[in-house]
Parts: sequence; C-alpha cells; structure tokens
Amino acid sequence: KNQHFKDKMLFFKAWLSLGGSWHWRHKMKPPIVYMSTSSLLEPATWFDDSTKWTRLGAAVLPFWVADMDFKAAEPIQSAVCRRAATGSYGYATPSLKLKEAIIANCRECWNAESCDPKWIRFHPGLICGLYQAVRLAQGGGVIVPVPIYPPFLNAARDTASAIRLVDVSKEDSIFKNIEKAVCELKAQGQNQIVILWCSPHNPTGRVWRRSELEHLANIVRRHADEITAVCSDEVWSGLVFDDTKTPFVSLAELAFSANYTDLLDRLVILTSPSKTYNVAALDFAFAVIPNDSLRRRYFRVGRDQAECTPLGLAAAEAILVNDQHNSSECRRRDILTPHNGKCEPWRRELVQFLQANRDYTIDFIHNHCAPDVYVAAIPEASYLIWLDCNGLGLSNPAAYFRDQFYLGLSDGDPFFGKVQSGFCRFNFACPRPVLEDGLSRLAAAVESVRSQRREKSLQ
Amino acid sequence: KNQHFKDKMLFFKAWLSLGGSWHWRHKMKPPIVYMSTSSLLEPATWFDDSTKWTRLGAAVLPFWVADMDFKAAEPIQSAVCRRAATGSYGYATPSLKLKEAIIANCRECWNAESCDPKWIRFHPGLICGLYQAVRLAQGGGVIVPVPIYPPFLNAARDTASAIRLVDVSKEDSIFKNIEKAVCELKAQGQNQIVILWCSPHNPTGRVWRRSELEHLANIVRRHADEITAVCSDEVWSGLVFDDTKTPFVSLAELAFSANYTDLLDRLVILTSPSKTYNVAALDFAFAVIPNDSLRRRYFRVGRDQAECTPLGLAAAEAILVNDQHNSSECRRRDILTPHNGKCEPWRRELVQFLQANRDYTIDFIHNHCAPDVYVAAIPEASYLIWLDCNGLGLSNPAAYFRDQFYLGLSDGDPFFGKVQSGFCRFNFACPRPVLEDGLSRLAAAVESVRSQRREKSLQ
Repeated sequence: KNQHFKDKMLFFKAWLSLGGSWHWRHKMKPPIVYMSTSSLLEPATWFDDSTKWTRLGAAVLPFWVADMDFKAAEPIQSAVCRRAATGSYGYATPSLKLKEAIIANCRECWNAESCDPKWIRFHPGLICGLYQAVRLAQGGGVIVPVPIYPPFLNAARDTASAIRLVDVSKEDSIFKNIEKAVCELKAQGQNQIVILWCSPHNPTGRVWRRSELEHLANIVRRHADEITAVCSDEVWSGLVFDDTKTPFVSLAELAFSANYTDLLDRLVILTSPSKTYNVAALDFAFAVIPNDSLRRRYFRVGRDQAECTPLGLAAAEAILVNDQHNSSECRRRDILTPHNGKCEPWRRELVQFLQANRDYTIDFIHNHCAPDVYVAAIPEASYLIWLDCNGLGLSNPAAYFRDQFYLGLSDGDPFFGKVQSGFCRFNFACPRPVLEDGLSRLAAAVESVRSQRREKSLQ
Repeated sequence: KNQHFKDKMLFFKAWLSLGGSWHWRHKMKPPIVYMSTSSLLEPATWFDDSTKWTRLGAAVLPFWVADMDFKAAEPIQSAVCRRAATGSYGYATPSLKLKEAIIANCRECWNAESCDPKWIRFHPGLICGLYQAVRLAQGGGVIVPVPIYPPFLNAARDTASAIRLVDVSKEDSIFKNIEKAVCELKAQGQNQIVILWCSPHNPTGRVWRRSELEHLANIVRRHADEITAVCSDEVWSGLVFDDTKTPFVSLAELAFSANYTDLLDRLVILTSPSKTYNVAALDFAFAVIPNDSLRRRYFRVGRDQAECTPLGLAAAEAILVNDQHNSSECRRRDILTPHNGKCEPWRRELVQFLQANRDYTIDFIHNHCAPDVYVAAIPEASYLIWLDCNGLGLSNPAAYFRDQFYLGLSDGDPFFGKVQSGFCRFNFACPRPVLEDGLSRLAAAVESVRSQRREKSLQ
C-alpha cells in the first residue's frame, strides 16, 4: 500500500517536470497547472532540507507548517545570492537605509508623523519577539486568543503565572471576554498584564475590523494601570485577499489615528517578511515599539537572541527599500508592502493566486467533505484554512489523515492548548496540482470514514 | 583632525587594492602583506552591513567583536551560494547526513561508543544555548568564570537568583574557588546549580589542561545532588595554536574517558563553526547533551528560539560532512575539525596565520606599549588577546583608544561585570597591514599618555 508513496521528492519532481498533467492516484480529471511559465510564481524545487517536506516523513504530502511551495521573488533571490557571494558571513547590522525604509512605511501606513528608526528592534524570528512581549508581564498575567498559532500559548506557559484564553471564534463576545479576563486577572492581584494579539489572525485568517480593534483599544484605555503591553503579531498583513472589503488595520494605525495614547504606549508591533515573501528561514523579523521605556525593557528581556542574518537583511532591503517614489497610488495598508516595491508585482500575483486556491479549497471541501469536514472560518488573509473535522468522530483527525492517507495537516490541538479539538489547519500555498492531490486525499479520508459508518449501520 | 578617518571603508578598499603598501598614517615601514595571492585566506571586502566595521562609527578601525576580516573558506562559500540559488528560504531541517557527521566526530574525539544523533539540539546561535543552560537551574544559582564573554554574565543575571563569579586568571585557585562557590550556594539553600564554562577560554585564550578539567569533574562528583548542569562553551576549540603542547580536551572527552558519569549526566556541550570558520551570522550552532532527561528539559526552556538557517546548515555540511574516510591520520581533538574535511586546509592555514599574528602582536605590545599596556594572558587558542591597560591610569581605556585614536577594542568592563576594570580585548584576526595599523595606533595612544605624564612631571 505504501509503495506508491515511497519517494515523494522524486515523484514530485517528476510530476512537475510533466507539467502536473499526470494525476497519479485518484484518477480525477487532469489538473490545470495554474502557473504558466510566464508567471512570477515559481514552484520550489529544493526539498532535501525543507522542514515542511521532511518532518512528517518522506511519504506524506505536506499542507501543514506555514511555508509556501514557491521560490522567493526574483529581486529577493538576487539580493540573497549577491550577499552570499561576498563570502563574508560575520555579524551583520541593519543598514540605515533599511531602518529608514521601515519607518517611512510605518509613517505612511499609520499616518504617524513622529515615527523614529529608534523604535525598531530587530529579531531573528517572530517567536523571539512573542516571548519578549510576554516577559514584559514579569511573570504576571497573559491573555491569549484561541485558537492561535501554538508559540503564543508556549510563550504564555513558559513565562506567565496566570493565563486567560479567549475564544476568538465567537465573534460577538471576543472583546467582552477579553475585558472579563482582564478583570479576573486584576481580581487575582495581577497588575502586569500582557495581551497577545494576532492580526490578521492565524489560523482563522480573520482580518480584524477597525470597529473591533476599537474595542481592544478601549479595554486598554479602561485598564491602563494593569495592562503592561499589547503585542500585535501582524506578520500576515501582506496577504489580505480583498483589501477594499476587509482592509487591514494595524493596531498602531488605530492608536495613532484615534489618539489612543494608552494603547500606543503599550504597543509592540511584531512583523516580518517571512510569511508574505516566504523567507522564514532567513531569520529576519522586527518589532516596532513607540514607547521609550517599554522598548528599553523589551530589549533587556531579549538578550538571549541570535542575530539577524545578512541574508535576511539583504532580502528585507530588496522588499522594503523603494528607490522610486510615487505617491499618486492608493495608500499602503501595511508596512510590508511598499508602493512600487521591487517585489510588489510578485506579491500581487501571489495574493491573486492564493485567493484562487482559497476559493477552490472552500468549494472542494464544501462539495466533497462537508459536513464531516467543513471550513470553520473563511480566511480573509493568509494561506491557511481552519477546518472543523469533528464530524468525522475521530480522536485525532490529523494523525488519521497522515497515517492512512499520507496527507499532512497541522493538528488543531496545540492551537487550543488542549487535546481532541477535532480541528486541523490546512495550508493551501502550493501549486494547484499539489493542492488538488491534497484535497482529493482529504476527500478520500472522509469517504473512508463514511463507508465505515455505512458498513456499521448495515451490520 | 578627523578628516583622515572620514571614510574608512573607501580607504580600506583603496589600501587593499594597493597591496597594503601605502601605510598612510604613522609613516612606519611599509607593511608586509602576509597573505600572498596563493593563500587560501582572502581578506573580506564587504563592510557595508558588517557590525564589526560599522558599530563604532565609520572612522574607527575595528579590533573588537569576534569576527575575522576574512572570507569563509571556498567550500563554504560554494555551499552557501548553491543553497541561496535555490530561491527556497522556508524552514529548514538539519539533514541526517549532518547529524551523523557531527556524531561521528563526537564519537571519535570523545572516544565514546554510545554517541547518538538524538543528543544534538540545534540553535541559531550559541547565546541561545547559554541562556537555556542557565534556565536549567530554574532560577537557582549560577557559577560564572570571569573575565568572560559578557553574554555568560547576562545569562546569569537575567535568569538566576544567585550568582558566584570565580576569577579564572588566578590559575592556582580557580577550582578551589569554584568548589567554595558551590558550597556557599548550597549553604544559601540553592540546590539547583549550573556551572558555566568556556573552553578554550574567551577572552584569555586559555586551553584548559586535562588535569585542570579533572578538578572540575571531581567537584561535580562531590556535589552531584546540587549541581544540575555544567555548560561547556567549546566554540574556540578549532583554533588551538599548539596542538601538541596544549591539546584541546573537551569536558565530554574527559567525562567519557575517566568514567565521570556524574559530569556526563549534567553536561551541555555548546559549539558552532561560527568562530573557527567565521560564519557567525549564518545562525547555526548546536548543543550535545548525552543525558535524556536533561536534554528534554533543555529543549523545553528554549522554545523561544529562532530557526537555524538553511545557509547555516549548508555551511555546516561543507565543514563537517566528510566523504573520504582516512583513519590513518592523528586523532581529532575537537568535533569541529574533521579529518580530510573540505575546509581543513583553510583552517590549518588560518591557525598558522593567526599564530603569526599573535606572536607579532605580543612582540609589538611588549616592545612599544609595556608596561603601561601588557598582555595579561598569552592566548593558546582563539584570535583574541586580553590586555591589561591599567598602567595607563585611565578610567576607560577602550573609550580613550576609540575616541582619540580611532582604535576599536572591546572594553573589558562587561567581561568582569563591573566598571573600571582597565582591561581591553584585542582581536588580531585581520590582514597584517590592518593589524600593524591597529597596533601602531595603540602605541601612539600609549605614547600620548606617556608624554602627558612627562609634561606633568616637568611642570
């Protein structure tokens, strides 16, 4: 049975070389290759050291960790290769040019006059920043929205003395519950509270509305004495699908525009080109912290970090430093997508491609898998889709998909910090043939459960 | 006065293009370029984003942070460029080949049959590992040898409740004082003690003798209930000058050979190719921890880390994976220098070059700067030299050198965790002309203090 799956890497390369027209397993109609050769998006071809492609075993087709199966944009590749070719791999420092580009973007997106390059703290990765933000509570209380990318929960557990989880899938009560959590922590005597936030949200892909964020800002205003910091992970902001219907609003933009100074003084904005531009392993991320004393404290609790890499800095410059200025275009909504940026055509094509993949995925699941597996939230951003698999009645659907159908999804349990959630996260950032294969495996898994059910009911 | 120093980068490039023969400032004899064109060592030429070359200001010639002014060995450069050219910069996993190469090296160097790839934990940098080791004390006590690379002290301060510093420059009493510190911490009620160790030592360049390490092992044996972990940072082990006179002995080798099981079960060996092969910013380091439960705990307290980069993994493979096996040569002394390794010729040439630079530096300082500045310890390894500048009678000699003579040394104060130590650390890993310029600036600084002294005594 496993014979066919033995060498995924070889198979996948062969498959791509055939233009994806050999749809080998489920004898469905030949998949359409959505990326023509003229496309800016190139499928990745290096899987030997890829965590996504190796961690779950060679046989499993991976739709889990947040990596895309595409090469980085050409300007990034050239910049990284140029920097690599210098042969100098010693400690590297972000250039003034890069800092100024970041701050220029912040200024424009947040409509903030006073932004300063000093506000930036560079990180080798976002998780470092999350932990630093939680350490600002000095062992106090942390409020975490769930379901959430698991390092949020790890950061809280490894550092805080009291944790409150707030279910963000119940959209009408999120902010009421956050305030309730703040009050509970205060009643417990916690007077150093950190609120973790993820915007757009991972795993639901929710783009928070301005009106929603105002609730958060008002909570901070009302409990300013006890809330030490609000950490907003905005790493997905460059991958919003419908910018006119659900425009991305940074917590910083809100804080500046509506004069939420309490929020502003507690704000840690975390971001990185890692997700939008698929450069997670170049170890480059950054925090923007407007308040001086908060930033100094933040720095002190993060002296255990590795360095940013010069390759990551080169990539960031290729993305963020924009030599041509053309202010006539519409205003930027997030600090990772500079106007006329060298990688902007690539990013726009990517977002379009991902949106088509998203729609395909939603349709497919609706037609072939629902109600046993259904889309719990339609992602308004990101390339992740949150699936409720409770209808299958399995204790661990992710393990079932992986072991029986060689389909690698992220197990939803760590996103809640509990077992048997029955949820999975599905990553649709791959060439269409791979996506079709993955979805057909999902359909086969669902069908298998259904047929077992039928057999049982006949007995 | 500052005019000449304005654009160091331009100057330095021009200077190298002239073969280093234009010795611009002190009108000394033209420097000899010790690296001929046939040399494997190539001077670095990229300074735009170099922390070493920019942090202290463009005018300052840098001899501080532990970076060498050489490009990486050619096999590393090709491996990094090849990996960069794939355009795939997603999360990367160390290959089995790399893990097996590391463990094969461990097995040979430590003469240990039982080494296992599971023992390895990968890090984006050594400092992450230091902090994790200190967190094993769970807020307990930490013993730190001083003077020491400052992150050792930061790790202790940021994490431990009690710290004991032991002066390692007093060679006859180090181990007595370490045991005294253990006893003091025990008397305080600390029953989770971590001992930090640096071998070869930074900043003194001391290669610890086997007999010395046995003292340490015996302390661990006598206080096994209270000593939780011994963390040995062995990142300088590949840069030992006289391997026959002062062979490097890993704490792991000692633990295996003399059956120090107490030590072995508490051991965290930290290392990285970063120093030996000058690849610090590729974010690749690793810990080897033989004890299962210690390793599990170590993993749990380090979930805040960034990832290793695929470029770092590629470099590590170029260094450590050795396809030809030839066991006839002498036994390896450290796990970073595989026999017939592709980068071994480069490393050997480097060590020879550094040894010549070391001798030149010691001679020069002895002849021109002593007794006001003298070599506090002759380095037996590394490219760092520890200078006692107390004879100058300055409150901060490093600031004086930097501001008055555009000479960038590491201030010794953070190595002791106190102010006004009067020490500096000097990095001699640079082309000879740069070294000569730096030393002549040092001599000029000393001469300036002397002439002021003479003037005063005449008044």
